[in-house]
Amino acid sequence: AKAQARSYGQRGDIRGVYPPIATPFTCTEDVDFEKLVENVQKYGKMPLRGLVVQGSNGEFPYLTVEERVEVVRRVRQVLPKDKLVMAGSGCESTRATVQMTEQMARAGADAVLVVTPCFYRGRMDSRALVHHYTQVADSSPVPVVLYNVPANTGLDIPVDAVVTLSQHPNIVGLKESGGDVTRIALIVHKTRSQDFQVLAGSAGFLVAAYAVGAVGGVCALANVLGRQVCQLEELCLSGRWREARELQYRLIEPNNAVTRKFGVAALKQAMEWFGYHGGECRAPLRPLSEAEAQQLREDFSSNGWL
Amino acid sequence: AKAQARSYGQRGDIRGVYPPIATPFTCTEDVDFEKLVENVQKYGKMPLRGLVVQGSNGEFPYLTVEERVEVVRRVRQVLPKDKLVMAGSGCESTRATVQMTEQMARAGADAVLVVTPCFYRGRMDSRALVHHYTQVADSSPVPVVLYNVPANTGLDIPVDAVVTLSQHPNIVGLKESGGDVTRIALIVHKTRSQDFQVLAGSAGFLVAAYAVGAVGGVCALANVLGRQVCQLEELCLSGRWREARELQYRLIEPNNAVTRKFGVAALKQAMEWFGYHGGECRAPLRPLSEAEAQQLREDFSSNGWL
Amino acid sequence: AKAQARSYGQRGDIRGVYPPIATPFTCTEDVDFEKLVENVQKYGKMPLRGLVVQGSNGEFPYLTVEERVEVVRRVRQVLPKDKLVMAGSGCESTRATVQMTEQMARAGADAVLVVTPCFYRGRMDSRALVHHYTQVADSSPVPVVLYNVPANTGLDIPVDAVVTLSQHPNIVGLKESGGDVTRIALIVHKTRSQDFQVLAGSAGFLVAAYAVGAVGGVCALANVLGRQVCQLEELCLSGRWREARELQYRLIEPNNAVTRKFGVAALKQAMEWFGYHGGECRAPLRPLSEAEAQQLREDFSSNGWL
Amino acid sequence: AKAQARSYGQRGDIRGVYPPIATPFTCTEDVDFEKLVENVQKYGKMPLRGLVVQGSNGEFPYLTVEERVEVVRRVRQVLPKDKLVMAGSGCESTRATVQMTEQMARAGADAVLVVTPCFYRGRMDSRALVHHYTQVADSSPVPVVLYNVPANTGLDIPVDAVVTLSQHPNIVGLKESGGDVTRIALIVHKTRSQDFQVLAGSAGFLVAAYAVGAVGGVCALANVLGRQVCQLEELCLSGRWREARELQYRLIEPNNAVTRKFGVAALKQAMEWFGYHGGECRAPLRPLSEAEAQQLREDFSSNGWL
Repeated sequence: AKAQARSYGQRGDIRGVYPPIATPFTCTEDVDFEKLVENVQKYGKMPLRGLVVQGSNGEFPYLTVEERVEVVRRVRQVLPKDKLVMAGSGCESTRATVQMTEQMARAGADAVLVVTPCFYRGRMDSRALVHHYTQVADSSPVPVVLYNVPANTGLDIPVDAVVTLSQHPNIVGLKESGGDVTRIALIVHKTRSQDFQVLAGSAGFLVAAYAVGAVGGVCALANVLGRQVCQLEELCLSGRWREARELQYRLIEPNNAVTRKFGVAALKQAMEWFGYHGGECRAPLRPLSEAEAQQLREDFSSNGWL
Repeated sequence: AKAQARSYGQRGDIRGVYPPIATPFTCTEDVDFEKLVENVQKYGKMPLRGLVVQGSNGEFPYLTVEERVEVVRRVRQVLPKDKLVMAGSGCESTRATVQMTEQMARAGADAVLVVTPCFYRGRMDSRALVHHYTQVADSSPVPVVLYNVPANTGLDIPVDAVVTLSQHPNIVGLKESGGDVTRIALIVHKTRSQDFQVLAGSAGFLVAAYAVGAVGGVCALANVLGRQVCQLEELCLSGRWREARELQYRLIEPNNAVTRKFGVAALKQAMEWFGYHGGECRAPLRPLSEAEAQQLREDFSSNGWL
Repeated sequence: AKAQARSYGQRGDIRGVYPPIATPFTCTEDVDFEKLVENVQKYGKMPLRGLVVQGSNGEFPYLTVEERVEVVRRVRQVLPKDKLVMAGSGCESTRATVQMTEQMARAGADAVLVVTPCFYRGRMDSRALVHHYTQVADSSPVPVVLYNVPANTGLDIPVDAVVTLSQHPNIVGLKESGGDVTRIALIVHKTRSQDFQVLAGSAGFLVAAYAVGAVGGVCALANVLGRQVCQLEELCLSGRWREARELQYRLIEPNNAVTRKFGVAALKQAMEWFGYHGGECRAPLRPLSEAEAQQLREDFSSNGWL
Repeated sequence: AKAQARSYGQRGDIRGVYPPIATPFTCTEDVDFEKLVENVQKYGKMPLRGLVVQGSNGEFPYLTVEERVEVVRRVRQVLPKDKLVMAGSGCESTRATVQMTEQMARAGADAVLVVTPCFYRGRMDSRALVHHYTQVADSSPVPVVLYNVPANTGLDIPVDAVVTLSQHPNIVGLKESGGDVTRIALIVHKTRSQDFQVLAGSAGFLVAAYAVGAVGGVCALANVLGRQVCQLEELCLSGRWREARELQYRLIEPNNAVTRKFGVAALKQAMEWFGYHGGECRAPLRPLSEAEAQQLREDFSSNGWL
């Protein structure tokens, strides 16, 4: 019932759970489209709202412009029509982001996720970020979702910039990966009149985020435990908070392991264990050491997942 | 019913809301015991679980050993017996903390709140912190509550150290002020077999903390909006999450203002506006500038509190 | 005499001062090759060792692959043959860096400067960085210079990784922009047997860096006060430390202003004041506000430069 | 000649090298005055300018008020009259610092070293710090030296505050432990008209600091390698920079080892190896593990000191 009620019209409704999918590489570090397609087919059968393609877990900074677009095109071809493709189109410069956004839309993206430019982080204040996102949203053929991921960018979009940007008709939400739930609550509070949608950027604080008004999550862990993250969403939406909490507890350590503790290589390793194709990482990312793989396994098994 | 059900027996039950009370000073920067007593009398009439005396908001690092103990003694004299006094007894050295803990217990504290020593933060690893807290808890006449406040200490007690310490029979909980709700959930999860109690260290993330298993809060804002914070607790405990969330939203900006944005001077200024005695701060803390006071007022008024 | 004594043979000698040149843009944000060429002609007449093209001040993350290569090609065409072109060829992935390095060499670069990949900074440990730089250096047709700039990357190459990499026959030095002179001294100390060359990454600590064994500098300020930075080098090399110190003092505030305080927009503004073409920045970088420009001017004029 | 030329008159001349002495404890963690006295007698025979008593390496936050004063009194009794005693008198509150300063002066301190108060670091801006230090200097019977040690305090005194305070007749200098030599140079530059003296806070960047105008050092390593640090000073003062650099290199790793890498416990361990009394640390500081002690030894032996 819930899922059906969601319609992705003019002002895109982006509520729900999305795995930010990994990009499998072959042993020569080329994109392994075959494996990618098989993963997407599996995700297509789950109660996910859609897929984030080219989020941080997709190793997008390691892909060429052509690869980025082609991956999105292939995913869109395979994914059932009722699932959304949210494509990461952020680049460092505004003009490159504008162009990438157009290409992503042409490749079939339903929305774009635009990470904060960050190389000149000392100058990426509200003025610069509002200008950047406004330019991108003005020209984007599809709705724009802001993407705040301080662990990778060393930068937080200031709350006042988010509030300003929430008033843009083509900016529909924010993926907030920082884990500061007070900030999430404040953003929900200050953007209410705009029907602005906040997605938690991690499964680690999904229940807390729902408790303060988030409407979904982009969760690396959903690449591995997709049904469980969807179940967590369902428990929150139906007000079964006690059960939600119990499930939440068991997801934190596996989630930490595939994100900040061991990163993309761990996500890909865990995907192999759970029946997906992780494949190689592109260098300079290295595969896990034996000891790391052992700890990763322990983080899943001690919580009853392996 | 809830409050009555709580009993503070051998294994102290510390659930509930506590303001970490301010220490009013006279214009010559002496402790103003008269004003202190009047504040405590007002707090005594609210559905608070008790008071934290000598938390960070109490300017404890600015008090002499004698003043610290005397403030606790006076508060205990005035506060109704069914309210708990949780006294901050943390010092940099283990031996000073042990002694202060004993003095606090003698002065009537029901429990002690022990902040992490932090001057040599580079060496305050799990080994050092487990040793410190174990020594303190071994000799303390009253239950010990760990106190993690990275904004002041530049240090997080590692989760593994908290888990180890949760097994000590005289360590009953943790006040977590860092605002990382994933960490709070993980600590609740990993200490479940110990009946270890986690208190949120701020009103800013109280709903989220309850959602993941915290059982109370030590909230600076409760010095000013004590009834509202108690109401927030009640809404969480009774499962009225939607109402809780609405109230939560309106507390975030006032809370930020009296904590990280403007600090103790703002807390004391707001106390004056709401009918309490804030009094002066001790130097080197300075009173708010005109512009800061104006912003502080705006943070309350824009949320409907002034 | 000094400059002539330097020969750039098999094991490239990179000693000396380099401005990391700015990339002037037109008002439509296209590369303004005409202005670029005019700047380079001016720099060509100074006692600089060469130019760094596509350092952080060159807004390289905002250029396309084609633009990056073309800028290097044009600079090489115009710059006198006895001056070195050190081209920034760093990308996030190893494979892109390998390709860019080859393109830069073909475009005429005498050496490449390879910034640390940083998006997945949590995983960019010694193992990953040694692998990355080794791959790049193995295939590079020209000598490789490591580039550590934590203000932009949020990452420091570990000293042990630098020591390991210094043993590679095609890695000749390090541009260290972090400003930690103890680290610079330690790196010089631990790489002595390798004839590894350390360049200070800023004019702000050039004298201190020379005092502990650095052999040159890549200094944003040399875009504006090129002769003065060369004079500072000459004073250090000839042991006139007292005069060096006096000149050093007057360069710190202007240098801070065009780097961490106001960034590339300030560098370009100051270039205009001193007879060079700064041009526009590419978005999301914004031009200076009036107040910032005023402060920038003050930082130069109070030290006697304007 | 140099040493004799230094006179400590009205405007105290504090140039030279000082070890910030350790406080040896007995196995019951009491101050071991006997061992302290023996150490001081040895230091008294070296060409040190004096001793810093109660610096960070003296574990001052672990001492009671009475112990802090008594340690200074004993040191002054034993140390030859021509050596200075610079006593750490910093406390968190201004009033406690004022009182401690007076007690230190009465106990025989020639000058006081006042660390930045830091618990409320978010509010310790220029306004607060200028107020604090002005109050202390106004009432101090002896000259005041500012003490900036961000590794312990998480705080940097803003340069503008240092410049303002340098104009106070009773504030004669700054111990700068942060290691940012650009900052040191800038402070020397901006306080020149005040005859303000900057001391490097570590042996790791002593040569660089001298190169940009520092006039001495407070060096933990001088507790162990006192003659070598004095020799390093002499090489800098006599302009033998090449020799200075060579000696500097060999001191960096031992210095890092006894400071940020392993801290006070390592300093005390190394003191035992070099014929001094280190003694125990007070808890919560822990003794070195076997592995740490082994690494510490390696840091000395690989540089030819053991």
